[in-house]
This record gives sequence, C-alpha cells and structure tokens, in this order.
Amino acid sequence: MTGRMAESGTAIGIGVGPGDPELMTLKGARILSGATVVAYPAPEHGDSLARTIAAPHLRADATEIAIRMPLSGDRFPIGAVYNRAALEIGAHLARGEDVAVLCEGDPFFYGSFMYVFARLAERWPVQVVPGVSSLTACAAVTGTALAALTDVLTVLPGPLPDYALRARLIETDAAAIIKVGRHLPRLRALLDELGLTGQARYVERATMDQQHICPLADATNAAAPYFSMILVHKRGTAWA
Amino acid sequence: MTGRMAESGTAIGIGVGPGDPELMTLKGARILSGATVVAYPAPEHGDSLARTIAAPHLRADATEIAIRMPLSGDRFPIGAVYNRAALEIGAHLARGEDVAVLCEGDPFFYGSFMYVFARLAERWPVQVVPGVSSLTACAAVTGTALAALTDVLTVLPGPLPDYALRARLIETDAAAIIKVGRHLPRLRALLDELGLTGQARYVERATMDQQHICPLADATNAAAPYFSMILVHKRGTAWA
Repeated sequence: MTGRMAESGTAIGIGVGPGDPELMTLKGARILSGATVVAYPAPEHGDSLARTIAAPHLRADATEIAIRMPLSGDRFPIGAVYNRAALEIGAHLARGEDVAVLCEGDPFFYGSFMYVFARLAERWPVQVVPGVSSLTACAAVTGTALAALTDVLTVLPGPLPDYALRARLIETDAAAIIKVGRHLPRLRALLDELGLTGQARYVERATMDQQHICPLADATNAAAPYFSMILVHKRGTAWA
Repeated sequence: MTGRMAESGTAIGIGVGPGDPELMTLKGARILSGATVVAYPAPEHGDSLARTIAAPHLRADATEIAIRMPLSGDRFPIGAVYNRAALEIGAHLARGEDVAVLCEGDPFFYGSFMYVFARLAERWPVQVVPGVSSLTACAAVTGTALAALTDVLTVLPGPLPDYALRARLIETDAAAIIKVGRHLPRLRALLDELGLTGQARYVERATMDQQHICPLADATNAAAPYFSMILVHKRGTAWA
C-alpha cells in the first residue's frame, strides 16, 4: 500500500418515474445499466415497485440492497431503517463503488427516500437524477393541464386537517391533493362543501396497468390506494 | 375509392424534459424515433430548444413543423399562431399520420403548448407523454427535496402582484417561484421582507450547460433568463 486512499463512490438517486417503465429517463436507464450496486425501497414482504419499474435495465450481476419498510413503525422505527440502509450503502461507497438508489416518481417530490439521501449526503458524494413525478403523470393521463399563465398550483397532502386544506383550496387556482388513502371520503366531503366537486378528478395508479380515472363524484370507495391523487382545476378544462 | 375513410392520426405531446437531452423519457425517445411528422415551438428567429433537446432521436426524413412565436404578440396575436399550428398539424392527422408535438419540460406544467393541444383535442385524438418538469429538475440540481410528509408546496408565477405572492408565501411550507424574468429584483425584495432570503435559492437553466445555482442573496442580476426559478424551503435543508 502506498498510503493513497481509494476515491469514494457516489450515491446516485434515480427517479424511475410514476409506473410505466418507459417513463424512466434515458439517463436513469444508462446509469442503471452500468450499476454494480443498486438499492431500492421495498415493502416488508414482497416486490419493490421501484425495482420492478427499473428491472429491464438492471445488470444480472448487480448487488441489490432492498430497503424494507416495516408495516408498523412502532415495532421498528423508520429512522433505524434509514440509518441501517445508509450504513449498508456507505460500505460500498467507501470501497469506491457507486450505488444507484432507485426512487418511485421523482426522488425529491415527497419521496420518503430523501431521508436515506440526507444521511448519505453528510458523508459521501451524492447526485440526483430527476424523474417524471406523479404530478405530471396524473395530468398527462387525464389529458388536462395542471396550470398555466399566472395560475397558482398548490400541492396538498391529504392527511392535513380540514381547516388547513380549506384555506389553501379557497386561495389556489389549481390543486393536486396527494397521499389520499383513507382520507378520500373526508376530502370528497370537503371539496363538495367548497363547491369544487365538479372540477375535481380522481386518478389511481397513473400510467400503471391498473390505472383508473374518474370524476371525483364517482370515487365512492372508502379508501384510495397509496398511488392516487385528486386534481382540482378551478377554471375547468377550458384552455383554448 | 371504396368510400372507406382512412383512420385519422394521433397528436402525441411529448415532454422532452428540462434541458439535458438524457432527461428525455424512453417513451418519448421511442415515439420520436418513429415519428414522420414532428412539430415544436420555436422563437421568431433561430433554433427551437425543444428540437435541440430531442435532436438525437429525430428521423432525418421527418417532416418538421416549427411553430414560431412572434416576439411581440401585438404584431401577430399568439392565438392566431396556435390556430395556424393546429390547422397545419391537423392536415397531417387527417391523412392518418401521427404527429409528435415537442414541449420543453412537461407539456402540462405551465407549458404554453397546451393551447395548441386544446385546439387539436377538439377534433383529433391526442395523447400526452409526461416529461421531467423544471420543478423536479431544479430540486435535483440543488440537491434539496422540494417537499416531504405533510408539507404544502406552492408553485407561484413571478408576475403575480406582491400582495398575492406575499399571502401564499406566508402560508406555504415550500414554494417554487417560476417565470422569474424581469421580476427578480421585486421577488428578492419581497422574500427579504418576509425573512425568507436565507432559505431561498436561485436556479438558472437547470440541467443545461450554462446551469447556475446560488443563494438568492447572490442573485443580484436585474433580470433572470426565461429558464430560472426561485426555490424556498422554510424548513431549510434539514431532512434527516
């Protein structure tokens, strides 16, 4: 040994897009096809959606790190999962290996994976390759622009309390309500109270095989899946 | 002629991403490589940015429709430009040819090209392939998440008057101010008044060769180029 340290690797966060594997970027696909270490979020049991989207580009000999999220954060704190993932990824970076870190949609648009990234960034070089977010994917599949000209567009997480949502929905020109889940009936009632039901659409699993789009009034299910969104256009769809 | 009409073509809006040609999607590249007619927005004189981004995928024998925007809308109304473009594209669709319509970033995120689309959709089948928007591109190059958990994220066009911007900036957790242009000095003063300068960053031409990122306090130019954005994170960059 001559005393020279090997250069450390880089953690590269890659947004794999909203679901359709073809909505990955050329850059994401190129980096993945050369990546010898690939990390991705996964449920406690079963397949990782991010890995499934990226599968056509993964090397057969890549080392894979599945970051499994426990169903209950009580049993095993989420922070500990991120800490462990950062350590495992960091061990590869220390050996000079780059690590591709897959993220559904875009890494920095409400992605829980930014927490692993924050931990890595304290010590290692990190880069992010942006991806197509669920926001623009939902707009595309509904065939309606999100916003134009001097419209204010507000992204609102569904778990926010009614008073917080109400104030923002009154003020904005267009809104995307994310993280709908079990809040769907409450959100439907709130938009109805504001007279916005007619301008609201419900989108489930945009660009995926099981995609479903309908007027919000028809979304009478008691709960929405994780990948769902409500789009509200106050000026309707009259863009011409 | 047997009296059977040829099926009409489809207008396919393709988001080519924020500037780096590798940030186009696989789907966009695939469709373009087979497209025999390609339309794109262009300045009155000179090259189209959208076409430049997409150039590696264009067929040499493709028919190209440059939709040139006059520098002054007074001289030749923008609406007339869109009308003429829709007619020209429609003539190809009527002959059963698909037409790929290029859009910088994402077609439905403040893209002026949605106006051509609205006109086409009245008469022809249209589809949209979402792209990486300037929003997630700016977040990626600054290395900072846009929003997380129950953060409210607001997209604010810079030309809005101070009172409208002030109200939204006070209420939101994170903001992306777009269409900065000549409003930069006014926006800087407004964010300073609100005590948000320290949490604001200025991004110019994200992912392009001439990309420039700096704290907002250092963006002392009198005007910003078209492709610029101010990102405001009230909780700073502490995501861990």
